Amino acid sequence: MEPIPKNKSFLPQTLRWEDGELFLLDQTLLPGKVVEERQDSVEQVWDSIKKLKVRGAPAIGIAGAYGLVVALKSCQGLERVEFIDEMRKQAQYLDGARPTAVNLHWALERMVQHAEGLSETSSELIHQRLLEEAIRIHDEDRQLCRGMGEAGKGLIREGMGILTHCNAGSLATAELGTATAPMYLAHEDGIQFKVYADETRPLLQGARLTSWELMQAGIDVTLICDNMAASMMSQGLIDMVITGTDRVAANGDVANKIGTLGVAILARHYGIPFYVACPYSTIDHHTPNGEQIPIEERDPNEVTFWGNHRTAPDNVKVRSPAFDVTPNELVTGLITEKGILRAPYLNSISETYS
Amino acid sequence: MEPIPKNKSFLPQTLRWEDGELFLLDQTLLPGKVVEERQDSVEQVWDSIKKLKVRGAPAIGIAGAYGLVVALKSCQGLERVEFIDEMRKQAQYLDGARPTAVNLHWALERMVQHAEGLSETSSELIHQRLLEEAIRIHDEDRQLCRGMGEAGKGLIREGMGILTHCNAGSLATAELGTATAPMYLAHEDGIQFKVYADETRPLLQGARLTSWELMQAGIDVTLICDNMAASMMSQGLIDMVITGTDRVAANGDVANKIGTLGVAILARHYGIPFYVACPYSTIDHHTPNGEQIPIEERDPNEVTFWGNHRTAPDNVKVRSPAFDVTPNELVTGLITEKGILRAPYLNSISETYS
Repeated sequence: MEPIPKNKSFLPQTLRWEDGELFLLDQTLLPGKVVEERQDSVEQVWDSIKKLKVRGAPAIGIAGAYGLVVALKSCQGLERVEFIDEMRKQAQYLDGARPTAVNLHWALERMVQHAEGLSETSSELIHQRLLEEAIRIHDEDRQLCRGMGEAGKGLIREGMGILTHCNAGSLATAELGTATAPMYLAHEDGIQFKVYADETRPLLQGARLTSWELMQAGIDVTLICDNMAASMMSQGLIDMVITGTDRVAANGDVANKIGTLGVAILARHYGIPFYVACPYSTIDHHTPNGEQIPIEERDPNEVTFWGNHRTAPDNVKVRSPAFDVTPNELVTGLITEKGILRAPYLNSISETYS
Repeated sequence: MEPIPKNKSFLPQTLRWEDGELFLLDQTLLPGKVVEERQDSVEQVWDSIKKLKVRGAPAIGIAGAYGLVVALKSCQGLERVEFIDEMRKQAQYLDGARPTAVNLHWALERMVQHAEGLSETSSELIHQRLLEEAIRIHDEDRQLCRGMGEAGKGLIREGMGILTHCNAGSLATAELGTATAPMYLAHEDGIQFKVYADETRPLLQGARLTSWELMQAGIDVTLICDNMAASMMSQGLIDMVITGTDRVAANGDVANKIGTLGVAILARHYGIPFYVACPYSTIDHHTPNGEQIPIEERDPNEVTFWGNHRTAPDNVKVRSPAFDVTPNELVTGLITEKGILRAPYLNSISETYS
């Protein structure tokens, strides 16, 4: 593995491990308050994941891995067998904080299997090896983001306007984010460009998180309501779209935050390239196409309330799918850590990750 | 003029004149509270217009006309000359409540000219004639809406899903609304259909007003966030779009609430007809095309706050155009009180309103 560059000071650190302690940025307080919380117990880590203080699939996985290390700190006197037993219990406990988060399950499983495969008999040493594995998971994610950044930054040219949707940013990952990684690296190279951030109803990840983290990094960002994207495109302000994704099917169909499909159609109408940043872990080779991806329906109250204030009639019917599926023919390219994949995706994906 | 049917009991009455008094529904309290306020003075009417208790271009014009009658109630003892002088002053005062509202200016101007052209010398009689003119303005708007409803209701067939954006409804007009008029008449005819109402960020007219008034009428309405429209269309749930408009250029380009353009592009992508309800008063024969229509930029705080709670970073840049322009080639038809106009609009508009 190449040496990992230090976290850039301009980027918010979603989580960090320092002097034997896990620190999480409380994302529920952003952008009003920037508060980092030390995680003193596994219960606290569980609660932070549950309450979305840490969010974004990669970040949740990393938090879970470190959380397991926190959980086992006081078990270092145990016999190996007892320690391994306790580890399984704690991993299962943490996994329950967000049962649908694939990365959380994946990271915890990887930690458990790693420990089980060790020859060490001392629980202190196993605990040490678990920490090393968590750091490895953390570093690998940083590396993945950097890989996508390197693959995609060449797309960003001086003076461009780039639209993004939701938060596929630093806050959701170990460092550079997915959709934002090319932006951070282009910015580092001194390229001037503008980002337009869709606010992303109903939960406003674009307003609360994306615009905040890009501002922290000194990137020129403009917040718009989702329904203003077409107007910005019609004015010639958008030259490229980059979004993240929650799952890519084997044929390149892209599931991502609700609203992504609409942006892709608008981009096609105006002849604007539409890219999706996508680490290998997000490609689901077992799902042949987007129609097979289950779409979660969210709580109607997220649409009908502003905080505690109701803004829609009592008992109004609401549809609130969390995601939509953008068919592969609307995707100009998938920005992966191994380069930009192009259509036909069935071939380019399977050849790259065979 | 044909006899005007009575206001249907299932429709909310934005305003009404009864027993010599003007009553306005306070739209700022909807949908939480349904409060009708009697307007006891011209200052109160001015304030109701200013504070958007009454909104929607046609409704504001009607409120202004009745407001002038309220203003002059206590002037009925005056000499003709003094009464006319006072009328001009009061009309100017009311006109200042929303200087950009074309219909308010138009209605007050019509009232003043009507009074000036009368042969009556008694101020009591002039006051009576002014009330009759206000009622005529009110009735004409009701008639226009009904005309659009009759022209458009044949488009609505059993089992359809219809998407609308913003509030071009009963609340904005004297009775049936513009975009909603075909829906109310089809509903009256017993046709079953579903309406999907875009919430319409940033001010949520779809959530607060459209979904409320359609529910009052017993129409099956589902509220969605603006960015969910593409998802609904991709699922085959939308068979037609009907929106209102703020101004139609001579070539058929349509200015309407921000987000309309995006909906029109999505509709085109999915082969869904996109109609715009448009009374003659909204067609601007002096503006050759949409590029000439000035677009108001709104206060950024409408995007960055939920009530008093800030949801975006301090000092974030915001774009917030109030309207966008949908080019005529995306418009399937203009639903007017004289029938449905089709492309080429330059011809169909000028022939219909020559």
